Amino acid sequence: MPAPRTGPAGDLDPAIAALLKRDDAGLVAAVVQDATDGRVLMVGWMDDEALHRTLTTGRATYYSRSRRDYWVKGESSGNRQWVRSVSLDCDGDAVLVQVEQEGPACHTGAASCFDTHPLAPATQVVEVDR
Amino acid sequence: MPAPRTGPAGDLDPAIAALLKRDDAGLVAAVVQDATDGRVLMVGWMDDEALHRTLTTGRATYYSRSRRDYWVKGESSGNRQWVRSVSLDCDGDAVLVQVEQEGPACHTGAASCFDTHPLAPATQVVEVDR
Repeated sequence: MPAPRTGPAGDLDPAIAALLKRDDAGLVAAVVQDATDGRVLMVGWMDDEALHRTLTTGRATYYSRSRRDYWVKGESSGNRQWVRSVSLDCDGDAVLVQVEQEGPACHTGAASCFDTHPLAPATQVVEVDR
Repeated sequence: MPAPRTGPAGDLDPAIAALLKRDDAGLVAAVVQDATDGRVLMVGWMDDEALHRTLTTGRATYYSRSRRDYWVKGESSGNRQWVRSVSLDCDGDAVLVQVEQEGPACHTGAASCFDTHPLAPATQVVEVDR
């Protein structure tokens, strides 16, 4: 297993690397959206190398901040993500990865990682203010 | 203008604050999705106070890492975001904010901040691998 690298690394297209605005750990946020139904599935983190692998292998690849290593989604669970498109945002600190998701995206077994903790919506306040 | 606060602050529901896994700057990623058409609009950042304001005012409120202050989306541009739901992800480091978006979400005038830099999709590799 190669040593984790954060920040600019050798393999990512330099034109893309130049657009990235990495955080102090050298990472950008990766928002993962189901290409079929538009559901937001999870947020992962990518350094230059993880983004390079995501763009060139067609399998969504992240950098784990806790384990300090790369992981390919579904490598152990089988719940793989097949990359359909990748877009960088206007200020370069986040990418949107649209995928075909096999099985549930969340390690809890939920379809989306955002299914686990719904917080109170502010609907009523919105109606009053508007 | 109050001094910026990152990390646990007084006003956020302690039960929610206890679930947050903040980064070194005290922030979580906020993924903003159009509640109407499912488009991912932008990624912002929230500390406890920004999340509290988002949940209680019905207007999406972020913490600017560059300006080190709070900002309410649309306060100057008029392109306001009315909060429809907020969900925390399984590991507590990201929230999904579903909004009704007035006008374009991106400061460039694009509908989404992810419209500006499409990166190469890996579609062909996916087809070969699958």
